[in-house]
Amino acid sequence: MRIILASSSPRRKELLKMITKDFEIIVRDVEEIADESLPIEEQVQEIAYLKGKAVNNITNGERVIIAADTLVVKNRKKYGKPKDRQNAIEMIKELLEGDRTHEVISGLVVIINKNGKYKEYKTYEKSKIFLKEISDEEIEKWVDTGKALDKAGAYAMQEEFGVHVEKIEGDYMAIVGLPVSKLYDILKNENII
Amino acid sequence: MRIILASSSPRRKELLKMITKDFEIIVRDVEEIADESLPIEEQVQEIAYLKGKAVNNITNGERVIIAADTLVVKNRKKYGKPKDRQNAIEMIKELLEGDRTHEVISGLVVIINKNGKYKEYKTYEKSKIFLKEISDEEIEKWVDTGKALDKAGAYAMQEEFGVHVEKIEGDYMAIVGLPVSKLYDILKNENII
Repeated sequence: MRIILASSSPRRKELLKMITKDFEIIVRDVEEIADESLPIEEQVQEIAYLKGKAVNNITNGERVIIAADTLVVKNRKKYGKPKDRQNAIEMIKELLEGDRTHEVISGLVVIINKNGKYKEYKTYEKSKIFLKEISDEEIEKWVDTGKALDKAGAYAMQEEFGVHVEKIEGDYMAIVGLPVSKLYDILKNENII
Repeated sequence: MRIILASSSPRRKELLKMITKDFEIIVRDVEEIADESLPIEEQVQEIAYLKGKAVNNITNGERVIIAADTLVVKNRKKYGKPKDRQNAIEMIKELLEGDRTHEVISGLVVIINKNGKYKEYKTYEKSKIFLKEISDEEIEKWVDTGKALDKAGAYAMQEEFGVHVEKIEGDYMAIVGLPVSKLYDILKNENII
């Protein structure tokens, strides 16, 4: 079965290799806009769906499309990728407010075209992150690595920023960008792997 | 400051790079035996200490030695590296008993020789892992990758086995093998980084 990852993220590519090495990457740019009146958990799935559906529409035959989207959430406010350096610094400072916890929500969409039939899975994984105290100097040092700008919430715990994470409750792989555990269950259930 | 990692584990080497790229690796074989009458948390620190102390004893001058040890624990039983394929399969089946949870305890020892003074840090990180149901076929498939034999508890969540982990509560990096978050705090406190 042809497996297509609808993401240009090198992190998602690495994570999908935990399940299979036999896949290709096809990405189509979509406007990542979801209905703001929906719960954030649904918005994340909607954006993943837009990405997956766009690739499904330009491909043919028996195939599986895998798409994901990740958002950082604190006090019901969404944090996507920062606009610039200053915005990245602000985001991290906001994540440190109060009890220094926030959530990472990762939407997962799997579109299956198999035996002439079409099927969609939409799901998500929610994890909680506990940050330590981080000084302004440490925030700037992290942002100046240049790795903050393409990350939701302006950080990545698998990079140098990881030393500032006290603990997590949830799915580490989903925090990094792809809920591989849930994805594995779907692909197994569909006899694709 | 000269930083020495007293471990041949490629995973610990990768994790230490989150803090610094400037370190060397020196390993001395030690008998990994701890006083069984001690709590497991202390035994893990003792074994890490044996590794670190052995390297400290064969080196000179201003230097920091970092050593770690990781054990999997369920119902107060310790799981180190499996003896063989059959033992690996048995270990994983035991980890699946009951509520399918277990703990990973990672001991961390930092030995600091700085400004002519000697100082030791001993600490540990404890995390909880929730496994999903895993079929016998899936267990054998994992063990047959050959990656189970050098891992405490016969698994590694950063490898293909990760798809069988439902969630964790704790420090992911410590589960993989090095409590980088705690290590960072120690090195920062000592003005080494």
